[in-house]
Amino acid sequence: MLKQPDRKYRAFAPIGLKDRTWPDAVLTQAPIWLSTDLRDGNQALVEPMDIARKMRMFEQLVAIGFKEIEVGFPSASQVEFDFVRKLIEEDRIPDDVTIQVLTQARDHLITRTFESLQGAPRAIVHLYNAVAPVMRKVVLGMSEDEIVELATTHAEMFKDCAAKQPLTQWTFQYSPEMFSGTDLAFSKRVVDAVTEVWGATPQNQCIINLPSTVEHSTPNIFADMIEWMHRNLARRDGIVLSVHPHNDRGTGTAAGEFALMAGADRIEGCLFGNGERTGNLDLVNVALNLYTQGVSPELDFSRIDDIRATVEHCNQIPVHPRHPYVGDLVYTSFSGSHQDAIKKAFSARKEGDMWDMPYLPIDPKDVGRSYEAVIRVNSQSGKGGMAYLLESEYGIEMPRRLQMEFMQTVQRVMDVAGKELSAADLYALFEREYGLKTVHALQHRVLEEQGEGAGASIVLRGDLQWDGETCHIEGRGNGPIDAFIHALVDATGHAVRVIDYHQHAIGAGADAQAVAYLELRVDESQTLFGVGIDADTISASLKAIVSGLERARGQGARSAQSVAEPA
Amino acid sequence: MLKQPDRKYRAFAPIGLKDRTWPDAVLTQAPIWLSTDLRDGNQALVEPMDIARKMRMFEQLVAIGFKEIEVGFPSASQVEFDFVRKLIEEDRIPDDVTIQVLTQARDHLITRTFESLQGAPRAIVHLYNAVAPVMRKVVLGMSEDEIVELATTHAEMFKDCAAKQPLTQWTFQYSPEMFSGTDLAFSKRVVDAVTEVWGATPQNQCIINLPSTVEHSTPNIFADMIEWMHRNLARRDGIVLSVHPHNDRGTGTAAGEFALMAGADRIEGCLFGNGERTGNLDLVNVALNLYTQGVSPELDFSRIDDIRATVEHCNQIPVHPRHPYVGDLVYTSFSGSHQDAIKKAFSARKEGDMWDMPYLPIDPKDVGRSYEAVIRVNSQSGKGGMAYLLESEYGIEMPRRLQMEFMQTVQRVMDVAGKELSAADLYALFEREYGLKTVHALQHRVLEEQGEGAGASIVLRGDLQWDGETCHIEGRGNGPIDAFIHALVDATGHAVRVIDYHQHAIGAGADAQAVAYLELRVDESQTLFGVGIDADTISASLKAIVSGLERARGQGARSAQSVAEPA
Repeated sequence: MLKQPDRKYRAFAPIGLKDRTWPDAVLTQAPIWLSTDLRDGNQALVEPMDIARKMRMFEQLVAIGFKEIEVGFPSASQVEFDFVRKLIEEDRIPDDVTIQVLTQARDHLITRTFESLQGAPRAIVHLYNAVAPVMRKVVLGMSEDEIVELATTHAEMFKDCAAKQPLTQWTFQYSPEMFSGTDLAFSKRVVDAVTEVWGATPQNQCIINLPSTVEHSTPNIFADMIEWMHRNLARRDGIVLSVHPHNDRGTGTAAGEFALMAGADRIEGCLFGNGERTGNLDLVNVALNLYTQGVSPELDFSRIDDIRATVEHCNQIPVHPRHPYVGDLVYTSFSGSHQDAIKKAFSARKEGDMWDMPYLPIDPKDVGRSYEAVIRVNSQSGKGGMAYLLESEYGIEMPRRLQMEFMQTVQRVMDVAGKELSAADLYALFEREYGLKTVHALQHRVLEEQGEGAGASIVLRGDLQWDGETCHIEGRGNGPIDAFIHALVDATGHAVRVIDYHQHAIGAGADAQAVAYLELRVDESQTLFGVGIDADTISASLKAIVSGLERARGQGARSAQSVAEPA
Repeated sequence: MLKQPDRKYRAFAPIGLKDRTWPDAVLTQAPIWLSTDLRDGNQALVEPMDIARKMRMFEQLVAIGFKEIEVGFPSASQVEFDFVRKLIEEDRIPDDVTIQVLTQARDHLITRTFESLQGAPRAIVHLYNAVAPVMRKVVLGMSEDEIVELATTHAEMFKDCAAKQPLTQWTFQYSPEMFSGTDLAFSKRVVDAVTEVWGATPQNQCIINLPSTVEHSTPNIFADMIEWMHRNLARRDGIVLSVHPHNDRGTGTAAGEFALMAGADRIEGCLFGNGERTGNLDLVNVALNLYTQGVSPELDFSRIDDIRATVEHCNQIPVHPRHPYVGDLVYTSFSGSHQDAIKKAFSARKEGDMWDMPYLPIDPKDVGRSYEAVIRVNSQSGKGGMAYLLESEYGIEMPRRLQMEFMQTVQRVMDVAGKELSAADLYALFEREYGLKTVHALQHRVLEEQGEGAGASIVLRGDLQWDGETCHIEGRGNGPIDAFIHALVDATGHAVRVIDYHQHAIGAGADAQAVAYLELRVDESQTLFGVGIDADTISASLKAIVSGLERARGQGARSAQSVAEPA
């Protein structure tokens, strides 16, 4: 790259609209949307859509709720022409939808374009010619007067062609190509000339579409340009003011939003920002930005993943995992502190509350996403995410100190494996760490022996699997756990003390299981958790004690194994 | 989606900074850049980087020219800690680079963080805690006073820890987490309290980093927020004001640029916008946006594809084909009119001219891209792109009417195949259509017979391959072409008239070939082109005539074949 890029690149001149109003504007209603997926999007594909793909895209756009759809450039190729014919002849256009087609300002292309629209009930015919100095001088070799002449002559031709097909309800649209690279006074001159030819009035509106054919400047400058045009165009009340942003500087969405704030009525773009080079404005992004500000976009993205599948099929370009609102990763928090916050906020949230969730600007369910992907656990995550996944997927509600203990095991595995752990991975690790499959149920009987109430004492007798053998145990205590602990001292030689105790049910009815989490002090030297699951609540607790005792004996060895064998 | 989203989503309240200055600001110098690829980027990966990948990323960032690099969250995991140790112990940090590490405002994490930095020559230690109401109430359960206390207590702890490691040159950084979702007065209160503890002065600056942890609003509102903070923070001259935008609304780049226009000195982000959810601000995007406005970013992206390869290797996430400045398709124009304009502008451009190319906001060569990908031909393209590819890749400079003729063949193939055609595909089609391999060289002799100058006449004799046979021909004319045409009438019965004639050389020296393009009128019924290539200029012309004649005879059949067999 050049050390002094100012010798090659010119800064875009500010418009300096001193009394601009757009920075204080707030959007409170949806604009008129125009999808150009089938035109500007399609022309930018490595493999443009065939007729079947075009039809699938068209039907998807209709299903989303687009009322204006640019369906092609019928004079450009036979496929384009045929598709327009097919829509019309097969009566595929719903009554509340208007198709739009594009044509350059050239006689034979315009003739062919109107030919493609024979029999259409309604149509927007979209005329363009270049107005920017670089195009005028280098490409067309025309003076400003000649450009105005080029535009008005072909605008006249539109009227003539339309008059010959009077059964169609016509709307004319004009785009001064490369508006974003043209000085405002000349853009106004050309547009005013065209709207004069078309006789634009409130009863006979035309569409004036201002494209950032190439995004040249920061979006505040584009906004100033649109506000200037909005204020200065002749016959403004006879115009639907439209914008068509591209995304070369990565700020197409901002440019589009600001243009609406600056006075535009209508916006052109593509689903997920397909289009030439860096793409057109992403209509979904702008629509859902409105939605999350409480404004209905009047478009339906409640099954966004289905829409994505259609778009990926038609365009044969994948949607990026970080693409706003739709990418695979955009509702996912890997960071432990993020996960912790989301978990707490979900717990605190009540049905009907306003949406105010940390790290989630939209409720994933509103676009048909589940919460499953919201929290994912990698080596950068904290215990919050791990605990959330085990709770949401397996019903395991770990006490906080158990989360801290188990997270060390998780962390060791992840430091070695370096991979994300799924909920299933975490559960497998949890099962192994706490011996949920290997600690056997204790066959036991509880005998009430002495007294009642607080001073009551019971005897517990049973067969314990210990060190690969079955040994008979018997103990006395003020409850089954206490009795079992006493029995254990005799049977194993280990002294166990219960520090904390949590138990809850998983599932319901006949399938319900109890999960017991016991924090134990073993031989007054180690503090750790044992976990037990059983249909019987007492068995779950007794298993948890054995779980903890086995962990205390084997901790060194088991930890090493955990590290070596990631789940 | 909800019909009335205002019942669930609240519009972000405007700041209403009436005397805002940022919309008139123009960026004229690079900000201080901070790459957080190894921290915020890394924590958002499905598979976070291992040490080898981290090191490769670090070295790439250094090579690009980053002077401040956040290398991890060393208290979060052993891998993070070990990487910081490795950088320090192996002396991997260049003298002009400062590493940065992040820590939450918790005692044991801060202790561990400073431990990881033992022996570092310089370091930025980055403290954060949540300040937003949702975090304060739901996650932390703290009052505003308690949040201030949390921040200042740990800011104090920073001073103590730093004092114990006096050989390191320390810079402290503080982020009020979720600044974008916090009211400005409270953000200022917390930040002012922290800068007071740190005794921020022009001689002892600290960094205050304002994150749009989640992008909640249009970027003009973020800009207003930053301008308000810039104007209202205490000890502003003791502060390096930094921003850390995310991209949830797809407007992170705009938010970052506006923040700089609003008074920020420094910007945090990742290469190509990696990071939690929709990603962090894309540093490459902002840097190259500056570059194309003539401002040196002081970062080097002159081999952007190598950088992309590194990023894709480290992050294991592909860069999207439409990603600004780096995607596979961003320098490509498929549209015929775009291609035509680019072709003409490239021809008109002189070395040293300011860059003013339609559809190309940056010279692809400045980031190490070739022009090869600029023009690609699909069924939506016009003749301009096709002609450009054949010229740039094969030296074929077709006359304009030949472009129009050959484009019909190309269009037929593409309408059927529906695929993009590469330059090689186009050349193969061109070879077949014009018989460049099947028209044999004519063995001929030219005899000067009569006169000199304008009235001179020659005789041409030779052996022509025609209809699978060799026939002897002889003709007289005012030049070889004229003589050959006369000979052809006798030999084949076809009358040929030359309407237009172009010839040029391909290659140079002994390998040079001549290409002749002859527009012919055959039997006064068909007008078409013939093309011939030969080392001998006369042979090239004669081959072109045979090419045209054969095409005239076989056009129907050959065209059908072309359609059936795409190149």
